[in-house]
Amino acid sequence: MTENFSYAILFSFVKQIFISIGCSENDAEIAATSLLIADLRGVDSHGVARLSGYVRLWETGRINATASLKIVHETPSTAVVDGDKGLGLVVAPFAMQVAIDKAKNAGTGWVSVKNSNHFGIAGSHAMMALQHDMIGIAMTNASALVAPTFSTERMLGTNPIAVAIPAGEEQPFVADMATTTAANGKLEILQRKNESAPNGWVQTKTGEPSTNSFELKNGGALLPLGGDKEHGSHKGYALGSIVDIFSAILSGANYGPWVPPFPAYVAMPENMPGEGIGHFFGAMRIDAFRPAEEFKYNMDKWIRRFSAAKTVQGQQKVIIPGEPETEFEKERMKNGIPLLESVVKDLRAVGEKFKVEL
Amino acid sequence: MTENFSYAILFSFVKQIFISIGCSENDAEIAATSLLIADLRGVDSHGVARLSGYVRLWETGRINATASLKIVHETPSTAVVDGDKGLGLVVAPFAMQVAIDKAKNAGTGWVSVKNSNHFGIAGSHAMMALQHDMIGIAMTNASALVAPTFSTERMLGTNPIAVAIPAGEEQPFVADMATTTAANGKLEILQRKNESAPNGWVQTKTGEPSTNSFELKNGGALLPLGGDKEHGSHKGYALGSIVDIFSAILSGANYGPWVPPFPAYVAMPENMPGEGIGHFFGAMRIDAFRPAEEFKYNMDKWIRRFSAAKTVQGQQKVIIPGEPETEFEKERMKNGIPLLESVVKDLRAVGEKFKVEL
Repeated sequence: MTENFSYAILFSFVKQIFISIGCSENDAEIAATSLLIADLRGVDSHGVARLSGYVRLWETGRINATASLKIVHETPSTAVVDGDKGLGLVVAPFAMQVAIDKAKNAGTGWVSVKNSNHFGIAGSHAMMALQHDMIGIAMTNASALVAPTFSTERMLGTNPIAVAIPAGEEQPFVADMATTTAANGKLEILQRKNESAPNGWVQTKTGEPSTNSFELKNGGALLPLGGDKEHGSHKGYALGSIVDIFSAILSGANYGPWVPPFPAYVAMPENMPGEGIGHFFGAMRIDAFRPAEEFKYNMDKWIRRFSAAKTVQGQQKVIIPGEPETEFEKERMKNGIPLLESVVKDLRAVGEKFKVEL
Repeated sequence: MTENFSYAILFSFVKQIFISIGCSENDAEIAATSLLIADLRGVDSHGVARLSGYVRLWETGRINATASLKIVHETPSTAVVDGDKGLGLVVAPFAMQVAIDKAKNAGTGWVSVKNSNHFGIAGSHAMMALQHDMIGIAMTNASALVAPTFSTERMLGTNPIAVAIPAGEEQPFVADMATTTAANGKLEILQRKNESAPNGWVQTKTGEPSTNSFELKNGGALLPLGGDKEHGSHKGYALGSIVDIFSAILSGANYGPWVPPFPAYVAMPENMPGEGIGHFFGAMRIDAFRPAEEFKYNMDKWIRRFSAAKTVQGQQKVIIPGEPETEFEKERMKNGIPLLESVVKDLRAVGEKFKVEL
């Protein structure tokens, strides 16, 4: 059961909520844009469904709505940004813009961020580069839910990587992936339907294979992309580790099992080695390598060749990364965003708190 | 059955072979170093076992032993290198050095390479950054053996990614991974033993799951990391695609199904859109983000915490990426490199051709 809302209605609502917790109008618009792009692109787990979670983090003092974002260190192609405990939804676009500005002068820009919070979907920040004829890269660490290969301990977040690459006449290539077999949001969908999970998504608290979609509640863990050693889970574990190190050890944020949890009711880890959550952003100007038109001509050729690749029986075509999300975005911008009743109820409860109507 | 050779003996032999095909002494030493690091680190499929393959590529005119390597485009943090059909084993260290030099001035350096050939193991080039207190990144495309999710066509190479990160007292973190469930070299090991492959490594030519380790000879394909859609193969496919695009579309090399094959007897693809094989390298100066000592202190803490993570029953410890390879390197540098009889025979046949004794 879903209720349909236009993008404009949801944008106005979310913006007012962020203003209500103390954001400037400009920051509230940036945050609403960052959050709603997830709903538009069909990543329902990361959109307005999380608005109440952000509000609770603010209520417990773990989010600073009037953060003063600062570059604390820089070179021609790099910077470290201190997010001042701000909303990741605002910190991330700020830092990505720094990367883009660096790329304008130095060819590329690379920004590691400390003292931030959850930033929505990685893809939305990476995509900021596209309009500048740049390749955009975004990643973030997150609180630990994932057990490395051979381990029973949750040591890494789902640590996503997004890469956005401009094309010419074709839609851009936008990969946006958790470094786990399946994102936690996919598991939550199964939980809602009371369905079991495929093998290779989760393990029990002693490290046994499991298909129980509620296994994390029993002390289990998500598995790195690959699932088990025989199927390359050491690669998913390495990728998640690289995201952790680029996001947090380069910047001075918390890493590994010390990353602060998103749910405000979960206690903070002890002896934290850094500040807040970490992100990492990159922007590479296409014409720092070759003329943008040549690059785009070949990207179009790449995309068309892969789209036309022979398919296994029963499949219509090979999907280009980002293609389904781009279709979602067009369709939902036009026809509205369907929200689950439980999400609408949750949003209205937040609205009542601040006297904002949905 | 193996025969043991010291590193020094093999180095001298390989160097003489490269000199015999026309390399300068300096280039021959660089190529021998690049090739043998694979044997030292236990990646036997990519070391001297491939020497005769490189020689055959030279014999058919597809490798230029006296290549003149050039930067054809650059900005403060980027460059494109034209490999002039040179040995990838020489082109790659040249390009990685350009990235390192850029990073010294601009904070980071990013180099895309066209017109090259196979470069050995990605990790060896990424590791060049470590001695400069930099993070090193290396990737390459390769001839198509991998079918994207939903496809029966071989569209991508095993397209590896390597990331080398310095630590303080601990050994560096070195991830070096094909973006497939298993590298082709692992499949070749099973073929030699006439053993079957685990599910999720290969598919038949119609896209059915297969455990036949000889499936590629029947027109089958390797599978992207993840294996199938339910287990995230679209992520492995996206990662392999990113490697392809960074390595070849940024530089002007061939991409996708048009990448030239390694075996000299395999015909070149038709209507190739670029020049040779492509690589991509990156170097990030640690202190372009924060003081190197602070970074290394936290890397040591990261490594120690992950090493100490609780293990599943039967496993002794959680492995840090690069740890087994570093152990191999120490052991083999000291005790020699064991080569399969078939490899020794192959090397001696190459030696006879050029009157170089092993």
